[in-house]
Amino acid sequence: MVKPDITRKLAQYAVTHNEFNDTVIHEAKRCMLDWLGVALGGSTHEGVDIILKTSNSLGNSQAATVIGRNEKIDVLHAALINGFMAHVLDYDDTHLDSFVHPSPPVWSALSALSAIHQFNGKEALEAFIIGFEVETRIGRVLFRKHDERGFHMTGMAGGFGAAAAAGRILGLSVEQMQKAFGITATYASGLRSMFGTMSKSIHPGKAAMSGLYGALLAKNGFTSALDVLEARRGYYEVNATEFDVIEAVEGLGEGFEILKNSVKPYSCGVVTHPIIDGAIALRQQYEANINEVDIIEIEVHPMVLDVTAKENPLTGLEGKFSVYHCAAAGILDGECGPNQFTDERVRNPELIEVRKKIVPKINEHFKTYESKVSLCFKNGEKVSHYVPFAKGTVDNPLSDAEMEAKYNSMAKIILGEAKSKELASLVWNLDESTFLSEILKKCSIGDCVPVGEE
Amino acid sequence: MVKPDITRKLAQYAVTHNEFNDTVIHEAKRCMLDWLGVALGGSTHEGVDIILKTSNSLGNSQAATVIGRNEKIDVLHAALINGFMAHVLDYDDTHLDSFVHPSPPVWSALSALSAIHQFNGKEALEAFIIGFEVETRIGRVLFRKHDERGFHMTGMAGGFGAAAAAGRILGLSVEQMQKAFGITATYASGLRSMFGTMSKSIHPGKAAMSGLYGALLAKNGFTSALDVLEARRGYYEVNATEFDVIEAVEGLGEGFEILKNSVKPYSCGVVTHPIIDGAIALRQQYEANINEVDIIEIEVHPMVLDVTAKENPLTGLEGKFSVYHCAAAGILDGECGPNQFTDERVRNPELIEVRKKIVPKINEHFKTYESKVSLCFKNGEKVSHYVPFAKGTVDNPLSDAEMEAKYNSMAKIILGEAKSKELASLVWNLDESTFLSEILKKCSIGDCVPVGEE
Repeated sequence: MVKPDITRKLAQYAVTHNEFNDTVIHEAKRCMLDWLGVALGGSTHEGVDIILKTSNSLGNSQAATVIGRNEKIDVLHAALINGFMAHVLDYDDTHLDSFVHPSPPVWSALSALSAIHQFNGKEALEAFIIGFEVETRIGRVLFRKHDERGFHMTGMAGGFGAAAAAGRILGLSVEQMQKAFGITATYASGLRSMFGTMSKSIHPGKAAMSGLYGALLAKNGFTSALDVLEARRGYYEVNATEFDVIEAVEGLGEGFEILKNSVKPYSCGVVTHPIIDGAIALRQQYEANINEVDIIEIEVHPMVLDVTAKENPLTGLEGKFSVYHCAAAGILDGECGPNQFTDERVRNPELIEVRKKIVPKINEHFKTYESKVSLCFKNGEKVSHYVPFAKGTVDNPLSDAEMEAKYNSMAKIILGEAKSKELASLVWNLDESTFLSEILKKCSIGDCVPVGEE
Repeated sequence: MVKPDITRKLAQYAVTHNEFNDTVIHEAKRCMLDWLGVALGGSTHEGVDIILKTSNSLGNSQAATVIGRNEKIDVLHAALINGFMAHVLDYDDTHLDSFVHPSPPVWSALSALSAIHQFNGKEALEAFIIGFEVETRIGRVLFRKHDERGFHMTGMAGGFGAAAAAGRILGLSVEQMQKAFGITATYASGLRSMFGTMSKSIHPGKAAMSGLYGALLAKNGFTSALDVLEARRGYYEVNATEFDVIEAVEGLGEGFEILKNSVKPYSCGVVTHPIIDGAIALRQQYEANINEVDIIEIEVHPMVLDVTAKENPLTGLEGKFSVYHCAAAGILDGECGPNQFTDERVRNPELIEVRKKIVPKINEHFKTYESKVSLCFKNGEKVSHYVPFAKGTVDNPLSDAEMEAKYNSMAKIILGEAKSKELASLVWNLDESTFLSEILKKCSIGDCVPVGEE
């Protein structure tokens, strides 16, 4: 049997693919804007303070920008921390065919690399699109068996996107790119038992860091297996029980996975989104009678209860993985942004009462972006709302204006209204910018005091 | 069913265990000496140059000693690089019940930590023993099914040893230690398809780095699952198909795994060692007639061909995983040290001719440390040598003098004879030293120029 040549094919694609139309370039900008918004939103998270404090205690250098902060940090930890903060609100984008969160690993790697290597906005956008393609293609081979077993897809596959994007910018040869994939593969990890803790959000950061490190090592001559994807005891064979490695390259170069990206309107597990859509729609119609509701039925895809079955969340983080909390917040608050996922809001007695009324029902025929929410009133009446496509998914996307509003809701708090708008404008015109590093500088605050010298 | 409380039990043990007899302390010193020797031996490896160059390009800081070098590096990469160089010769110690190489992850983490945190030799030795216990106990649950599937045990389990040792020094609470294990677990990885490349040796380095980082993050308040070992979608459930988690704590505190350590007399895959023993023994008796040998039969444990079946190695690294090369080098050279695993020696025509005469035969009843080697002469005569216990294993250990000779063979090349002896003496008296950092300083050369300023 001829061994499939998957690793080399993906490496060759990453190094040489050169056709990008306006649509995909625009999608890459939307990804960057969304990544920046959620990173700025996450930049004040306690976990960011801890990573910075830890880095400080290590006497690390101050080469790279930390988004939304006035500290700087070494390049690899910049990739880590920017990836962490871009995921910690559970508000980042999702590729639903692989369940990889594509922007945090790739944009965080590119942003960190820009501190030591100059490249322009167009190069950054193209590298991002390539990284997106590689990580989601490698991820989709494993999804969903792999994810069900307990690997966190972004931790497992995100690093390849970071390696592909950083490696392309660094001008790796095809063979060096194969090695970068090898190094990344042997660093790939991420357990779903970390959901609900800070350690979940370290996965996309770690993916950004290890992919970037793999590309840098490969550039400098470090050796690795050239065929890690298809190899005996390689990435797939070791991590998966059933898989078809060919899926990673089917149709490679004929389209772009970035066109299947989903952007989150709510800062919580993506599978809860169609339920929140339904809850908000019903609230808009029946707000006046909301206290008369006896039972709230939610009809959902099986994965919803697999991932978000936490009935009694105690922290904001846990709330993001509780479809009960998400549905209740949709009914009571009419929104599910970061404010709905504070520890305080999750422990609110009124909200807890509504949570108890939620009754889930699995519908095997539903897609992950589909749901039906019903309110059963005490007087016996029942009203339902069916959601065919969750807001933010491919068939019901956020408009550019909605994306900028989401971004700005977080960015303005950190950067101020004027700087937030300026940064958004720079992102929309990223293909015309001379250096990505110039844009990164606008993402920090203050004079960028080195860590430990505040 | 009551959930087994494995993670907490191991964390509690790591934090509180306080009885160490002279025998285990002495074993810990032997481990340190061996680790130092192989690290010094590996310190001139090309891969070390590449990691240093890469770190330099990142503008990293110069806080910590790099063993055998005059450069310094940041603390986390000191753990990485010291772990890398201590494994790259495939000359480091092995715990045969788990196939974890125990010293590189734990000593590399402790040595890096000593750059920013002061602790004495006795504390270091005790922390090492604890780290050894934890990583091998966690590893043995997975070995051998897990290893067969393709995970590199040291990459998968070594980080827990590093976390336990560093966490103990940092004074973690039991709960913080559980979190340190959680962070380490979600970083655990390492593919056997990397064998024969530099990426294999990054596994113990990465284990040292991630365990140390996990302990530091946990100390600073980072959150993680508290039950990662026994959790649904935790470390074992995700990475293993069959396992008994209880094995990790059976007899905990009643003895020490360090007493089952094996030290390598040869710088190659440990399963080849009984074959090399047999080859060297036969060479000693039949050197004069060695050209008359027609066939060399090697009777071996099944794992030997699973791990080291490479018939035609092309590089020194590949030679370490070729039982053909190892047996041939034993027959021709009467030794299997670093000199037998250069690219040049592996490509030597005379050695290649001897390699072709090797005929392996699997014996299912053999242990990994057992073998029988036979020379079949052209005249029809056949002589055999049976090895019940490979040199360096528990029942046939290296003496202290043999260990120091192994250490010195590498250390004197880097440090010079006098400094090598002084350092060995410091290690033998480690329990009386005030600061581990003082000893680490003796392991570098020159004035320790910061990376990039040479």
